[in-house]
Amino acid sequence: MNQSIKPGDNPDLTEERLSGTFDTNSMAAVIYGSDKLAQRRREISEAVSRIPELQDSKPCPFMTREEKILEGSRKSAILNRLLPGLIDLDSFEETVFIHQEVIGIEGHPLALHESLFIPPIATQGTDEQQKKWLGRAQRREIIGCYAQTELGHGSNLRALETTATFDISSQEFILNSPTITSLKWWPGALGKSANWSIVIANLIVHDKNHGPHPFMVQLRDEKSHEPLPGITVGDIGPKMAFNGADNGFLGFENYRIPRENMLMRHSKVTPDGGYIRPPHAKIGYSGMVRVRSRMAAEQGLFLAHALTIAVRYSAIRRQGYLEDRSREVKVLDYQTQQHRLFPSIARAYAFIFCGFETIRLYDQLLIDVQNGNTSGMADLHALTSGLKSVVTHQTGEGIEQARMACGGHGYSMASYISEIYGVAIGGCTYEGENMVMLLQLARYLVKSIEMIQNGKSKNLGPMVAYLAANESEIDLNLGPNEYLKVFQYAARSQAWRATEKFQKLRNSGMSKEQAWNQASVELTRASRLHTRLYIMSTFINHVGSVVDQKIKKVLIDLLNVHITYEVMDIGIYVQGLLSSDQMDLIRNQLYVSLETIRPNAVSLVDSFQISDMQLRSVLGRRDGNVYENLFKWAKSCPLNDKDVLESVTKYLKPMMDKSKL
Amino acid sequence: MNQSIKPGDNPDLTEERLSGTFDTNSMAAVIYGSDKLAQRRREISEAVSRIPELQDSKPCPFMTREEKILEGSRKSAILNRLLPGLIDLDSFEETVFIHQEVIGIEGHPLALHESLFIPPIATQGTDEQQKKWLGRAQRREIIGCYAQTELGHGSNLRALETTATFDISSQEFILNSPTITSLKWWPGALGKSANWSIVIANLIVHDKNHGPHPFMVQLRDEKSHEPLPGITVGDIGPKMAFNGADNGFLGFENYRIPRENMLMRHSKVTPDGGYIRPPHAKIGYSGMVRVRSRMAAEQGLFLAHALTIAVRYSAIRRQGYLEDRSREVKVLDYQTQQHRLFPSIARAYAFIFCGFETIRLYDQLLIDVQNGNTSGMADLHALTSGLKSVVTHQTGEGIEQARMACGGHGYSMASYISEIYGVAIGGCTYEGENMVMLLQLARYLVKSIEMIQNGKSKNLGPMVAYLAANESEIDLNLGPNEYLKVFQYAARSQAWRATEKFQKLRNSGMSKEQAWNQASVELTRASRLHTRLYIMSTFINHVGSVVDQKIKKVLIDLLNVHITYEVMDIGIYVQGLLSSDQMDLIRNQLYVSLETIRPNAVSLVDSFQISDMQLRSVLGRRDGNVYENLFKWAKSCPLNDKDVLESVTKYLKPMMDKSKL
Repeated sequence: MNQSIKPGDNPDLTEERLSGTFDTNSMAAVIYGSDKLAQRRREISEAVSRIPELQDSKPCPFMTREEKILEGSRKSAILNRLLPGLIDLDSFEETVFIHQEVIGIEGHPLALHESLFIPPIATQGTDEQQKKWLGRAQRREIIGCYAQTELGHGSNLRALETTATFDISSQEFILNSPTITSLKWWPGALGKSANWSIVIANLIVHDKNHGPHPFMVQLRDEKSHEPLPGITVGDIGPKMAFNGADNGFLGFENYRIPRENMLMRHSKVTPDGGYIRPPHAKIGYSGMVRVRSRMAAEQGLFLAHALTIAVRYSAIRRQGYLEDRSREVKVLDYQTQQHRLFPSIARAYAFIFCGFETIRLYDQLLIDVQNGNTSGMADLHALTSGLKSVVTHQTGEGIEQARMACGGHGYSMASYISEIYGVAIGGCTYEGENMVMLLQLARYLVKSIEMIQNGKSKNLGPMVAYLAANESEIDLNLGPNEYLKVFQYAARSQAWRATEKFQKLRNSGMSKEQAWNQASVELTRASRLHTRLYIMSTFINHVGSVVDQKIKKVLIDLLNVHITYEVMDIGIYVQGLLSSDQMDLIRNQLYVSLETIRPNAVSLVDSFQISDMQLRSVLGRRDGNVYENLFKWAKSCPLNDKDVLESVTKYLKPMMDKSKL
Repeated sequence: MNQSIKPGDNPDLTEERLSGTFDTNSMAAVIYGSDKLAQRRREISEAVSRIPELQDSKPCPFMTREEKILEGSRKSAILNRLLPGLIDLDSFEETVFIHQEVIGIEGHPLALHESLFIPPIATQGTDEQQKKWLGRAQRREIIGCYAQTELGHGSNLRALETTATFDISSQEFILNSPTITSLKWWPGALGKSANWSIVIANLIVHDKNHGPHPFMVQLRDEKSHEPLPGITVGDIGPKMAFNGADNGFLGFENYRIPRENMLMRHSKVTPDGGYIRPPHAKIGYSGMVRVRSRMAAEQGLFLAHALTIAVRYSAIRRQGYLEDRSREVKVLDYQTQQHRLFPSIARAYAFIFCGFETIRLYDQLLIDVQNGNTSGMADLHALTSGLKSVVTHQTGEGIEQARMACGGHGYSMASYISEIYGVAIGGCTYEGENMVMLLQLARYLVKSIEMIQNGKSKNLGPMVAYLAANESEIDLNLGPNEYLKVFQYAARSQAWRATEKFQKLRNSGMSKEQAWNQASVELTRASRLHTRLYIMSTFINHVGSVVDQKIKKVLIDLLNVHITYEVMDIGIYVQGLLSSDQMDLIRNQLYVSLETIRPNAVSLVDSFQISDMQLRSVLGRRDGNVYENLFKWAKSCPLNDKDVLESVTKYLKPMMDKSKL
């Protein structure tokens, strides 16, 4: 049933796997959406494991930044050669998967090339521009990045300072960074690797600023790789994580590019300096929505990484005693440990289910937009804004709890969990800072409530229809959908509370902006509850659709952990609805559900099927043989190359010797 | 009033400082307990800033581990020479402060020498042993560490495996590490720097195991610094943070030490193999309690570091608009930003106040114990266990929120907040894992309730007397003490709920251990509430004792942020007590108090008086001139030493060239 058992494994882990009640390959098929996709992941892991040149030359935590970038470049170059034989090149999933398997999660010099450099050329370049650059980019004759954010400017696009001024006489744009805050800052691969970039700059024609537009800009000489004259470029320095990526800065001083380098599929500048504006103002949105729509599944998988490590390790780590004083117990048997980990397992499943659902919604939206129907854009934009925010936050919490659940060794880079945390938590900030995102969703919620107030409830989309519903009696014995009603109550009452606060402040004569600001904490709370409701609802629906009964059984157990934990967690919002007896019932139900899931805990994380190579964690090894490998890992760390360090010979030894005089 | 204003500062910061209503030096005196202590900190910072050889040779985030250890050793050696001229050597506060100022927070090779190596010699060594080693250690003729934790064994001391077997014929102890899990693991400075160690090993005499005892063990040759035969020693590899410290592993193979190397003040082994047990079993506790009693203030200061950075940067970072569309607003004007930061400022103050109070309680305890009165030990042990747990957890949350409040640049190591987080969050695990700590406090709470049940309420200590109190009407208009009553209600009802759950399970026939385990999540909740009540109560008392009226005014404002935020945060526990109108009142009061504190926000963090050197943050600079210095910092990072990296010449360039063919 559990497909991860092998001879030589730590018997404590084998015992856990034997207690599982379902087939882990079948569960993987449910997690990844199909048996085929799950199997492809296994096949790719297996194929990669047999290619020596794709293995890590040493553990990532032992590498300097320069070594990480070198390693990422080495593997990228090899993958560029081997990829056609290893994956389906048209599959985005497989492409992402193999890079994570081979290079890991700390970033690499080509990470943005596929996801942020090629798409703008493909969607915003004219046919001619695509002909000129798309093939070169796809074949990797050039390496590109995407330069938008500036040193002093993040979310507020309107405030970008970089200028591209049209010089009609030479038919060129002149790029300039007029201030220090206008330096492009943060773009991945910009620092050292890319030689081309999409640059977002304010288009200025005849002294008129038409706002930010995309330009195709060569940064470095294709022969020498030296920065071209007029270009200042470099790496922005070490970060909390992602240190295998060379995020960079970029400044322009009267740097000229031909008129044809503005991406002109939507907006255009004619040779005589005429400006043609794009058909839809919000056409640029879809790129952001695409990236955000992928974040829930991606973050869910980061959480899955951390939980795989923590749950496996908790099954082999023994500490303290219960009844039997002769042998210490597995820490996974402690209720506090289960309470730390199992609700997170449920969330990881929920996020992944919800993530793939959101990707489906995005793909549908793309088809709709191509057919001229952009009506779903606002809905999906609001949804993905909230989802990105809630999922990144809860993922971060869950990963840190997983790390701490590993005790002291969780703190060692051998656990690798702190690196996973560093990478995942970046998601709270990139692609739209979480507070800003929650407030974007809040606008949508407030608008929805205004529709209800204006008697137009019928026009509400399905995701917000509950805002107009009446309260109903809750009978918790009727199952998950009753818990959903509890969540609806919480989300609804908070959305109304926040909206009414905003409206009251408005009516008191306050400006819209100030009223919004003063209601904003309440508004963000409404957004979080709305999003958590959506996640729970998707989880319930997904479990309902599972056919395999053994799988369904354990997923229902996991769902019970989820709904009870989540309702307890938002308890303060349901005071008006549930009696204290009902709250007690839910609380007890949560503890029961933790015990129910216990025998399947290891199988549930095994089902994510993250290979040892991808996991990069000594603590999380499939075979559970942790301690001997921790020792091996430590002995091989760079500091142990010598018995006596320079710090001793140069400073400590002289200090001690002098003290002896 | 604000003493941090200088010419050339960023005008946005100066504006903030001019809006402050109190003198920051006076506030610093309140924070650090006296005008003298606050002034000493300023003087030491000032003196250090004038000594070129004590400055960082480059920013810490640019150093490898080996460089960090080298730098820490260099500075330690210099400090060993200069310290007498810089600080009062008898002041523990000044010693800690100057090390943090000069070397920083990432650890250094001598960090454990003073705090964990010397104290056991001084308290557990006989007079003769002290004579032999104490002077040598204090003069730093030798460098020591403290080796207790093992690869497979943390909190549960009874399970340690290292053995010290008395060989009567040679009058020696034979040290052995019988298994891989028995390797000593984690001790700071053990890996590379220390040549001596206190080693905790099971004392075995005549085949009888007397449990863990401390031994003085030489690890390395004092001339060559090479490990002695029979010793396996090395560094355990990189960690989430503290990478300036060489935490190590240590194994013994029939390693012999003289009988006289067992620290024998309390337990003794006589030459003929007789064993004399210590007078009190819990005598070893006081060391743990000492370290934990210091953690609240220490963690509060970590939080203060992060908030100094985030609040200052939020006052110069402008993004988005309120009414005025011509200029972006300071992000500190957003309610969401205030809600992220201000309750944490209040907590930082509360933790520091509470921390110094706890240190005073510990000092009192020491006097009592010396007078033969150990009755307060259990109380303080329980208190510090809970305090350590709650404070480290909330500090971690607060630091991460501070980092995220800085947007993208918070993620750069230039902010340094992620390093502060890594160091501070270690506190959740070291010195007793938080869950274990909360359950230790819970034992004390359950015992207290059992006393009440047995009609012995009168015997309750002052910290738990509220457990026996009756509920009373709450009139929130009467000020902070009413909020305290709310908290008492919450803590009391949860303590009773958890205790009754435990008792009910016991009465149903469950073993004590299982009943405890199944009640443990509820028990940890009781412990958290009890501790938070203590923190709030100490905060209220401390503010009440302040004389300076301007200082008192702003501290009351800060206290209002605290009490309203904390009560909202535990709202679910006070459902039975407060009406929803009362909850609304508190919520509104919180928002009002955020606005009230706004003009003093920068002055409140300036009052921590953390120098730029100690802060080590480009974002948090006193002068607010962030962007030009971010650029300077980035340009100096090691990756920018060359324009074209080896990763390009070796891999990326050949890949691109090949693609062109």
